[in-house]
Amino acid sequence: MPRPNPRLVMKFGGTSVRDLDRIRNAAEKVRAEVARGYDVAVVVSAMAGETNKLVDWVRGASAEPGERAAFYDAREYDAVVASGEQVTSGLMALTLQQMGVPARSWQGWQVPLRTSDAHGAARIEAIETEALDRKFEEGLHAVIAGFQGVAPDGRIATLGRGGSDTSAVAFAAALGAERCDIYTDVDGVYTTDPRLEPRARKLDRISYEEMLELASLGAKVLQTRSVELAMRYKVRLRVLSSFEDGPGTLVCDEEEIMESKVVSGVAFQRDEAKVTLLGVADRPGVAASIFGPLAEAGVNVDMIVQNISEEGLTDMTFSTAADDLARAKAVLEAARDAIGFREIVADAGVAKVSVVGIGMRSHAGVAQKMFAALAAEGVNIKVITTSEIKVSVLIDRKYLELAVRALHDAFELHAA
Amino acid sequence: MPRPNPRLVMKFGGTSVRDLDRIRNAAEKVRAEVARGYDVAVVVSAMAGETNKLVDWVRGASAEPGERAAFYDAREYDAVVASGEQVTSGLMALTLQQMGVPARSWQGWQVPLRTSDAHGAARIEAIETEALDRKFEEGLHAVIAGFQGVAPDGRIATLGRGGSDTSAVAFAAALGAERCDIYTDVDGVYTTDPRLEPRARKLDRISYEEMLELASLGAKVLQTRSVELAMRYKVRLRVLSSFEDGPGTLVCDEEEIMESKVVSGVAFQRDEAKVTLLGVADRPGVAASIFGPLAEAGVNVDMIVQNISEEGLTDMTFSTAADDLARAKAVLEAARDAIGFREIVADAGVAKVSVVGIGMRSHAGVAQKMFAALAAEGVNIKVITTSEIKVSVLIDRKYLELAVRALHDAFELHAA
Repeated sequence: MPRPNPRLVMKFGGTSVRDLDRIRNAAEKVRAEVARGYDVAVVVSAMAGETNKLVDWVRGASAEPGERAAFYDAREYDAVVASGEQVTSGLMALTLQQMGVPARSWQGWQVPLRTSDAHGAARIEAIETEALDRKFEEGLHAVIAGFQGVAPDGRIATLGRGGSDTSAVAFAAALGAERCDIYTDVDGVYTTDPRLEPRARKLDRISYEEMLELASLGAKVLQTRSVELAMRYKVRLRVLSSFEDGPGTLVCDEEEIMESKVVSGVAFQRDEAKVTLLGVADRPGVAASIFGPLAEAGVNVDMIVQNISEEGLTDMTFSTAADDLARAKAVLEAARDAIGFREIVADAGVAKVSVVGIGMRSHAGVAQKMFAALAAEGVNIKVITTSEIKVSVLIDRKYLELAVRALHDAFELHAA
Repeated sequence: MPRPNPRLVMKFGGTSVRDLDRIRNAAEKVRAEVARGYDVAVVVSAMAGETNKLVDWVRGASAEPGERAAFYDAREYDAVVASGEQVTSGLMALTLQQMGVPARSWQGWQVPLRTSDAHGAARIEAIETEALDRKFEEGLHAVIAGFQGVAPDGRIATLGRGGSDTSAVAFAAALGAERCDIYTDVDGVYTTDPRLEPRARKLDRISYEEMLELASLGAKVLQTRSVELAMRYKVRLRVLSSFEDGPGTLVCDEEEIMESKVVSGVAFQRDEAKVTLLGVADRPGVAASIFGPLAEAGVNVDMIVQNISEEGLTDMTFSTAADDLARAKAVLEAARDAIGFREIVADAGVAKVSVVGIGMRSHAGVAQKMFAALAAEGVNIKVITTSEIKVSVLIDRKYLELAVRALHDAFELHAA
């Protein structure tokens, strides 16, 4: 029996399939990988703009005339919105055929990719690859509509935000693909945002753990969820540009990274807010009485710091997105009696800066070096949190650029 | 056990669901029928313009950059184009929900509606209604994506031209619906085109047979295929306007029509051409030698008349669409040796006028009355054909309006 071809998953996001020209450009990249001997599963997003248009229609149909509803039947949302990827999958298959690459489209329900019943934000439960396997054996490459599957009720389910990346990684795992290539509008993962620090350097490789920290810290190259899935199933992820040639950045197990720097990158979030509750009773359950109502109101709390207690009272500080500040304050005022605090002090003018690197695990002194670099520039630190591979600080927003550049320099990230 | 509710199929075409306002307008009509106690299956087309956009993308993806292919993979065409009805079905279900009418969408594959494997122009093979039945019992009205089903290969298949009307009639038959209401942009079937004869009168009822003749003669209210299906399964069809209130026209068995006029309507096709082959050998098989090559070339031949033979030679006349004339002549010239004829005489300036009515079966003299009415206006008749319920003539195109009005008057069609 002939040895099966190695497999490759190639995922193209919305801007990479915006129109027929872009689809053709993406199809050229598929053809090149087919020529290298791969059986390719292409995972496609909706054409840029289509999903927004469809969501707007769903919100309009669910509201009084001329209004836009915030809530709607998630199953109908799924039926409408999944049509975007359906269209792209067919157009990509046709384009590949026109180029001489045998291919066919697969909708989520046709594979099938089975999901949970959480319509609108479903989880992937299983991918049955038998039909895909058979078609690969017949020489037919696959174009899979991303972001969707079929729920236990037999209806279309979408995977929610970042769903297409997650689809792609899940297919790579299920198909035993050699790699999952995520084509996007940037050419890889950088040591920091190049718009802010021109000396930022593209990384050849980065570990899953570091990528997770960078993603959750606002480097929007990959959705956190897809990186988590890749880490769990050891799927090698490559981030690369649809529009420029180049090897991109490989996101992989740290064992594949020969020698890594102590710090791999500097991440930041510009629009943060800091909230401090002064004079909180230092008793068991007080944290729950604060953060429970915030969670219920959908306020995303990031850093949390509790100061030492004096005379049975303590101060509790947390950060959140600046957009959520007004809501957070309203929730806390409403819960004032249940919590028991003296005063709320809020600062809507802070930013968060983090240094990330798996090398920290074995190297002491990263936090110290970070603080020294910031101090040398006169940047005052308001809050500090640390994890195994990350140190984060809140600073005044006006110092953000200065701080990022100082840290990029201090950890010599511009040098390969 | 409670008696099940009577069922109604309501079909809305593309202009009736062009945007959210129109969908809402259509949904109001559904709500009214639900209030009358019906279990309703709504069958929807794609929003006007969407199908054309999708087809254009399919043709673009199947061609060199910037061109539009005439041929493409029909299975991918189906996947792309069926998304149009998918979107409308979800939006209609959401709109109904918002109005307080419990409803859900059904894609063709979800019902399932099973088709032949002729992707792009599939035939309906079966509709399995068990799942729909169950949901009706739960009080959930159905919104069905028209024009589509699932083929034996498990892929989406579309039904080709007029597919949404055909879907609607097939669902009405399968569900045992009391009636199939086709909502469109005209308010019924008229005795002739009101733009041409202002005294044209809307018919309350018309038989399937008459409707078929009118449809095939160019009255574009209903697709021939859907009327054939309705006739076969005795589905009562109602044609009515999405935009005006009114009972429309009921297309039904002639037994339901108490007293009908001898002639129900005057139909016409403006842009016809007449072709005569002079000096054709009058031998067995000569008709096949002429019309075989024309059919292969896709030339639609309508009327055929063969004159009496003189000295072993005959003249053969047929009509076709004016657009097809050049192709028809080229095909015949190419087959000249195989056919054997002296000369081709063509007339691109003719029109066809027909009077249609099931009453003709029992009333003699309809043709005579028609010829007399035309003669009285000085209209020369070039070709005549008759069927059981129709008399058609070819005349000079310039007399078309005159002839239609004269016949409408002669058969007193303006009077109820």
